This record gives sequence, structure tokens and C-alpha cells, in this order.
Amino acid sequence: MTRAVVLVSGGLDSATVLALARRDGHACHALSLDYGQRHRVELQAAARVAEALGAVEHRTMALDIGWMGGSALTDAAIPVPNAPAAGIPLTYVPARNTIFLAVALGWAEVLGARDIYIGANAVDYSGYPDCRPEFLAAFERVANLATRAGVEGDGFRVQAPLVALSKAEIIRTGLDLGVDYGLTLSCYDPDPDGRACGQCDACRLRSRGFAAAGSPDPTRYRPGVRPPA
Amino acid sequence: MTRAVVLVSGGLDSATVLALARRDGHACHALSLDYGQRHRVELQAAARVAEALGAVEHRTMALDIGWMGGSALTDAAIPVPNAPAAGIPLTYVPARNTIFLAVALGWAEVLGARDIYIGANAVDYSGYPDCRPEFLAAFERVANLATRAGVEGDGFRVQAPLVALSKAEIIRTGLDLGVDYGLTLSCYDPDPDGRACGQCDACRLRSRGFAAAGSPDPTRYRPGVRPPA
Repeated sequence: MTRAVVLVSGGLDSATVLALARRDGHACHALSLDYGQRHRVELQAAARVAEALGAVEHRTMALDIGWMGGSALTDAAIPVPNAPAAGIPLTYVPARNTIFLAVALGWAEVLGARDIYIGANAVDYSGYPDCRPEFLAAFERVANLATRAGVEGDGFRVQAPLVALSKAEIIRTGLDLGVDYGLTLSCYDPDPDGRACGQCDACRLRSRGFAAAGSPDPTRYRPGVRPPA
Repeated sequence: MTRAVVLVSGGLDSATVLALARRDGHACHALSLDYGQRHRVELQAAARVAEALGAVEHRTMALDIGWMGGSALTDAAIPVPNAPAAGIPLTYVPARNTIFLAVALGWAEVLGARDIYIGANAVDYSGYPDCRPEFLAAFERVANLATRAGVEGDGFRVQAPLVALSKAEIIRTGLDLGVDYGLTLSCYDPDPDGRACGQCDACRLRSRGFAAAGSPDPTRYRPGVRPPA
């Protein structure tokens, strides 16, 4: 069985990706990053997801980029927006997927893994530039120029199987593979018990996805919050 | 004055790069990574270099990739080689420059810096794939696809002014700019006082560089060690 590194955030997308990587026949090494995100409770969801979906290993690496500031997700002084806005949103974390993929690449090289799975999506997404196919292709090129495995001819593949799927398609894919989305957490601003705010961009995209998939939304919301329309 | 992020390891090359970035007129934000390297004492050298060469700020970010293993620099079970060998050496750290550049990119975006300086060199170097010009160009492309600044048209430049210089040329460049190489530490296996082993690849390249530059080697070696030929 070939090894793969799978970036697992604890959210809906990466849980689906882990299920797909398992279906593809990989021994999956799950990687989560503790980067000072305000929704750190998602890391508990990541551990649950990794175990439930049969990862052979789950690592959470501390990566303190909060001191840089610049994002509502890592800077307590910038509130998480509760309404949509034009352009790249305040929840954008500078270079996040580049940093995550770089760490995953290092681990993949040590493990002898050649496939790196990431839940990037460019359809029902928040408009982050580092979720687009052209970014992922450029990173794959970097991976194969940066590393021993790339130079010696046995290159890496950046696998982003969700990149062109709608949120509803992602959910249906995961349900077909037995993913329990009740284990996952997508919200950017959950309470300490991991209950979703129901207002942020991630909550809106998730709720609409379940509605469009025709599947009940298993999300636990904060008391008094109704799922977003 | 425009801002730049400069990766400063504490070694000879990155000190020279910092001097060049200052000469280019940048306000320099120096970044060092504490990645579990066995030569962590180089971080003290990095702080000295950043101050001496007028960086406006110096940050050291913890980035524990030692748990991955796979390198003589981060895995205590793999000794630092004391003789040259063919191919990519054991001191290669998987994806190190990709990870470092990714973190530098995030910080640069937050700072509004557009230039990222790195002391990569592909002439008198250890054969690391992530020091080659084609890698650096590919990373620059990633930087401009990954980020708000790239998408909105005001892109990043990965500046590697040493990439085609010999070690002697690097040293002469730095001396012309007033770099005190006595502040720097290149050795992969120094003692706790920061005195060089005189045997590793980095010591050999450095010592030969000073000889070829016709300049006295200011390196402090461990007691009883003679500079490598």
C-alpha cells in the first residue's frame, strides 16, 4: 500500500478528501496545523475524523503564524465577518495553503509518500487565491524541483479531488464513502464546545451544501442559532 | 523606503544577502526559523547579524519539523557527515527552503513587502535541490498565484542575489559592504559556544571561500581543530 499525506483541518472538505485518499488505496498520514487559528477547536474534530476514517497516523504540528497578523482567523483584533463581502475576505490567511503544502511536502518526502491530498475547492469557496487549480499546479512544480524525490525522477502529485466540485457534490461524495459529517467542524468562530456560529462564510457554505445535497445538516449550532439560509 | 523580508540563518550567505537588501534600499525585516536544527546556536548569530546590519526587526519563528526526521540536521540519530559524498547529502532537510519561503511569503504579504531575499546559492553549495534557480523561479510563481498581492497584480519577487556567485565572490561582496563575518556561523555541528567543527560540508565550503577570496578566515573553531583545507 502506498503512503499519502493528507491535510486534515477538521472541516467537511478535508474529511471527504481523507475518505477519497483511503478509497484510492493509500495508507494515510493525516496532518493538522495548529497555526493560532481562533477556531482551534477544529483540531479536536481533525483527530476524530482521522481516527474514524482510518488514518494510520495523525500529527498536529504547531506553527505559530498568529504573530504576523493580517487575518480575522489569527488576529483577535479583526472580527470574523458575519455577512458576505466582495473580493478576498478578511478570513484569508496569507500564504496558508503554501505553508501547509510545504510542511506536508517535507513529511511526504521523509515518509516516501508521493501523493499529498488537500481539500482545496474553487467552486463553493470563500475566494481564497490559494484554493485555485493554477496555484495547486504551480505548487506541484515547486515540489518536484525542491526535493530529492523530485530531482531523482520519482515525483510528487498534489491531489485536490474536490477542486471542481460544488459543496453539495462534495457532501454526496463523502456520504457515499461513509463520512460522518457530524464529526466535522467548518465554522470560523465556534464556541469552546465546537458549536458553530451559523453566521460566518464557512457556516453559510456548509449549510447551503447540505440543503442542496438534500441531506440533513448534522452541524451542532450554538444555542439559539438557526442554520443560515 | 520599501520593505523586504530577508531570511537570515546566521550563516555567511544570508548575512551577505541582508547587506545587499539594505544596499538595495529596503527596510529589512529579518526572519529566522528555529526548526529543531542541531546547530540552533546559529540563531544567536542570526540575531547578531540582523542587528549589526541594520534590520528594522528580527523575528525567530519556532517551526518544529524535527519530528519528521530524515535529515542529519534535525535527527539526532543521523550524524553530520565529516567527509564529502556523492549526491544530495544527509544534511539535506526535506522541503526546508520551500517551508522557509512560504513563511516569509505570508509575513511579506502582511507587511506589504514585495521582495523576499534568500541566500540560496547553486555554485559552492552542498547540492541541495532547493537552492537552484529553477526552484526559486517556480516558487516565485507560486507566490504570485497564492496571495492577494499576487492576484491583485502587485506581485512578489524572490531575490536570490548569490545564486550564481562562488563562495569567494560572496565573501568579497560582503566585505565590500562591511559585513563582519566574525559574527556569522556556518557550521552544521558547532559546540554550545558556537565554535565550528571544521569538518562538515559547511565548514569546508566556508574555509575554502575565505582562502579563495584572499581574506583571513574569522571563524572560531573548536579547540584543537585546524581549519579544513
